[in-house]
Amino acid sequence: MPEYKAPIRDILFTLYEVLGAEQHYRKIGAEDANRELVDAIITEGGKFAEEVLAPLNRIGDEQGCKFVDGQVTTPPGFKEAYRQYVDGGWPSLAGETRFGGQGLPESLATVVNELVCTANWSWSMYPGLSHGAKLTLSEYGTEEQKQTYMSKLTSGEWTGTMCLTESQCGTDLGLLTTRAELNADGSYRISGTKIFISAGEHDMAENIIHIVLARLPDAPAGTKGISLFIVPKINVDDGSRNQVTCGSIEHKMGIHGNATAVLNFDGARGHLIGPPNEGLKCMFTFMNFARLGTALQGMAAAEQSFQGALAYARERLAMRSLAGPKYPEQPADAIIVHPDVRRMLLTQKSIAEGGRALIYFCTMQGDILHSTATEEEKVEAEALMSVLTPIAKAFLTETGYEAANLGMQVFGGHGYIAEWGMEQIVRDTRISMLYEGTTGIQALDLLGRKILGSRGSLLRYFTRVIHRFCRDNNTKGMQQFIRPLRKHYREWGGFTRKLGLKAMRNREEVGAASVDYLMYSGYVTLAYFWATMADAAYRALQNDTEETAFYESKIKTARFYYQRILPRAKCHKEIMMSGAKNLMDLDDEQFGSIR
Amino acid sequence: MPEYKAPIRDILFTLYEVLGAEQHYRKIGAEDANRELVDAIITEGGKFAEEVLAPLNRIGDEQGCKFVDGQVTTPPGFKEAYRQYVDGGWPSLAGETRFGGQGLPESLATVVNELVCTANWSWSMYPGLSHGAKLTLSEYGTEEQKQTYMSKLTSGEWTGTMCLTESQCGTDLGLLTTRAELNADGSYRISGTKIFISAGEHDMAENIIHIVLARLPDAPAGTKGISLFIVPKINVDDGSRNQVTCGSIEHKMGIHGNATAVLNFDGARGHLIGPPNEGLKCMFTFMNFARLGTALQGMAAAEQSFQGALAYARERLAMRSLAGPKYPEQPADAIIVHPDVRRMLLTQKSIAEGGRALIYFCTMQGDILHSTATEEEKVEAEALMSVLTPIAKAFLTETGYEAANLGMQVFGGHGYIAEWGMEQIVRDTRISMLYEGTTGIQALDLLGRKILGSRGSLLRYFTRVIHRFCRDNNTKGMQQFIRPLRKHYREWGGFTRKLGLKAMRNREEVGAASVDYLMYSGYVTLAYFWATMADAAYRALQNDTEETAFYESKIKTARFYYQRILPRAKCHKEIMMSGAKNLMDLDDEQFGSIR
Repeated sequence: MPEYKAPIRDILFTLYEVLGAEQHYRKIGAEDANRELVDAIITEGGKFAEEVLAPLNRIGDEQGCKFVDGQVTTPPGFKEAYRQYVDGGWPSLAGETRFGGQGLPESLATVVNELVCTANWSWSMYPGLSHGAKLTLSEYGTEEQKQTYMSKLTSGEWTGTMCLTESQCGTDLGLLTTRAELNADGSYRISGTKIFISAGEHDMAENIIHIVLARLPDAPAGTKGISLFIVPKINVDDGSRNQVTCGSIEHKMGIHGNATAVLNFDGARGHLIGPPNEGLKCMFTFMNFARLGTALQGMAAAEQSFQGALAYARERLAMRSLAGPKYPEQPADAIIVHPDVRRMLLTQKSIAEGGRALIYFCTMQGDILHSTATEEEKVEAEALMSVLTPIAKAFLTETGYEAANLGMQVFGGHGYIAEWGMEQIVRDTRISMLYEGTTGIQALDLLGRKILGSRGSLLRYFTRVIHRFCRDNNTKGMQQFIRPLRKHYREWGGFTRKLGLKAMRNREEVGAASVDYLMYSGYVTLAYFWATMADAAYRALQNDTEETAFYESKIKTARFYYQRILPRAKCHKEIMMSGAKNLMDLDDEQFGSIR
Repeated sequence: MPEYKAPIRDILFTLYEVLGAEQHYRKIGAEDANRELVDAIITEGGKFAEEVLAPLNRIGDEQGCKFVDGQVTTPPGFKEAYRQYVDGGWPSLAGETRFGGQGLPESLATVVNELVCTANWSWSMYPGLSHGAKLTLSEYGTEEQKQTYMSKLTSGEWTGTMCLTESQCGTDLGLLTTRAELNADGSYRISGTKIFISAGEHDMAENIIHIVLARLPDAPAGTKGISLFIVPKINVDDGSRNQVTCGSIEHKMGIHGNATAVLNFDGARGHLIGPPNEGLKCMFTFMNFARLGTALQGMAAAEQSFQGALAYARERLAMRSLAGPKYPEQPADAIIVHPDVRRMLLTQKSIAEGGRALIYFCTMQGDILHSTATEEEKVEAEALMSVLTPIAKAFLTETGYEAANLGMQVFGGHGYIAEWGMEQIVRDTRISMLYEGTTGIQALDLLGRKILGSRGSLLRYFTRVIHRFCRDNNTKGMQQFIRPLRKHYREWGGFTRKLGLKAMRNREEVGAASVDYLMYSGYVTLAYFWATMADAAYRALQNDTEETAFYESKIKTARFYYQRILPRAKCHKEIMMSGAKNLMDLDDEQFGSIR
């Protein structure tokens, strides 16, 4: 198992030197988030991740969750680690102070999340989903509902879930059939079966608060007839067991430490959250949070796998450098000397560190939305969030999976053996391209709903950010990045207009272009963040610094990214512009005649 | 689990209509391989694969091999299936007649292998490795050794292995330490530990014949001091147990049905094959065979996953077509209507079918080498084999893995659940990019050893094949393929020369370009085979055919490939031409300062 080391220096670089966290905290009125406190939280979070969570990661995979007689037992140590997490006050970092939270910025909680998630993704999902449930309640719950649930969710004594999927539908929630009927006391009887409920049943907390999509009896068909309900495992008023039971847990490729439950609601007592038939809209708070959380999974996989591969590449001996022995005292050179091993490591590194900047940036936009910032700032933040969330989710999970696979590849045959832990990262992170909306769904959300749906105006919020950066930082050293970045963001706007015109003639063009469009967007987005990192590094090097190697590494990784990763964007552009005909031209039968 | 259906029609199309098997069999003097016999063998092989092997595929994954007290038990049913396979005479198809073989072309055995491998990869490795052992003996064994081992290997009563890897070396066999000391009777005492020995121990055959790399006492260091030995599990002269024992079997990401053994040789009795210190050269017979076999694993994963995904895409309902309902009588459209689902299916299909043509073509070159063909034909065949083997191995395993992942993706969240069998394909095929030489090693073999090592002359054998095809088939319908194909094969030659010049100044340029060079080569190679398939389809359509849909599907898939897959080649070109500096420019320490 790769030994996880919290990359504190990289995190602080991203936070302060690249994204200007100090100004940001001032802008959102987060007076408490002073540098000293923030550093202490990150350092302590890193220790918790390294010492408590990371050692449980392989155990979680090997032992998995057990399901016996309707009860789920989490892997050895999970429960105790959760107790420590709650006792340490970690769940309440960004919680509302009136419910016992610490009122710190959501973006800071995300930094701690990164540490937790990278050390042990399966474990992190238990508190992760709780946080989503809390956000949903906080936005749409009545005051009474908040009083009932928020304190215990904030402290972590209770956990939460999101219950959307049914066996016949996940992507297309319009097909869901779970019913909700009104009781005399104003509560609802919820009946139906939900599947794929992460952290849906476990032994880590005394109650589980399910956020459930269901239909009222008179609801219109399709997605406009879905309402949102809160359904506790244990009824809060009388402490009785609610009629929601775990039917089984799934056998999955990975994330064995997290219980993916089938939940049977047999007239379970629930309470409506938000307006009737607007459940899907309300659920989007949770979904957007979960999507960024899933983006984090991709980035975390890249980071974890990079750490493992780098350590191995420094130790494993094989062959001599093509340029002559570099470690002549050893029987062969360490494989880090080989160009292709470096290509793999730098791909991982550029995805992990670029992804970190993208995710932190997104959560900072989220901070602005719920802050004292100006209306104009909020409009911009919302636009940026809306465009960058599907990009971060799909692009970072796709490239994070690639990075995890490259980490295995660095290990050669040993990468395939469970004991090394590298293949677990691949299996665990494979789900990230599927849940919370597949890559295809994110791509439709981005291109169809957000970009073309706004006639390109949402995209322009982000290209303006890039434009301003290019204008303000066009120094001599930075030209190697500014020039291609400028070319790409202009081109991005250009072919978006062309796609819009094509789509007016034929709607299939949207679906045919969408995933390549998203990947193009992702590569350019990360190019922007790598330019900002290079810029921060150049600035640091101009001031006297003792960390020359650290900053030079950022510039060299940026150069690697621009020369060896960004060229992929062009290829996605060519493919998406090839049009829908080459896909739609086959009859369904022609895909396989004898199959 | 996707239900495997042997794609007989596609196989026959590739064999006869694309690759001209009838002429080929005449050319190599395989008089027995008449159309009727070949069709019967393929049909029967398909039935065996569908009915006997495919049903054991999931059992193999779930139950895996068990290791107790030095004994390996294969999964339930594996042993019985092997018995049926032997009784059916399948192992001996291409065997030499004087050892009881049927003397049919190796390329025909590969077709049957495709069926067997696609239905159940883990199972297929037991007979697969035996076949490699047989080829090695046949080429380098003494007449006495052949008399001792060939008949039972040919019948399948015994199986074989290849024992190369040790814990400290796989890629760099120069580091291996297993020793071989001469006994008074001319045999050798072999001592050392080999790991990752596929089919290294099992309960399916009465003896296992290990082909082992080891060092003689006076051998020079490095790869020039390695010799090859044959070491049976049971001594053939007296039936006693040889001193080779299985220490354990590995816990792996996939291929659970195959025993990956640690083998301890404690003075085991062995016999030298081939000249002393030329073991690595002799082993290349086995390795080249195994590399094509591994290429087949990539192709098989694409085919199997495609079959599963296609069936699901025709059944699963979600959303409406963007162009309006296509199945208005159902609550939603089958997902095969969605452009992005089609993109994934066609990617799989184009890799599976293109890969089939490439592999069959390679094995036909192998036929020529061991046939009555002219010397000139043999020189060409050898050149083609030597260039196309690393391309097939690395490119088809990389794209086969991509295809397997796309198959999972078509299933959405269900793809992650073990019961559906789609994630098993991903786990099983992940090894194919690692064993028998990683993608990186194949790429160095291709660019460094074969292409630049021959100053481009080996490559020209293949570009001439493409050139002749373009010249002879430049019909109106075919221009859409001929034009880009011509552009690419010329460009391929062009930048190969440039790389050669760069490499003369700096050897690191080879390693820095190699994997992208290989992927470029793969995309262009498959483009050639897709052009030949389109050409065959056009020809069939010109003659009166009732299979219009079948042939049109080939042309449309070729078009998809040219418009949506081939553009990736350009991106690999740009990346490889970016040079070694962006990789070599970081000190080892700069990869991560605090990690």
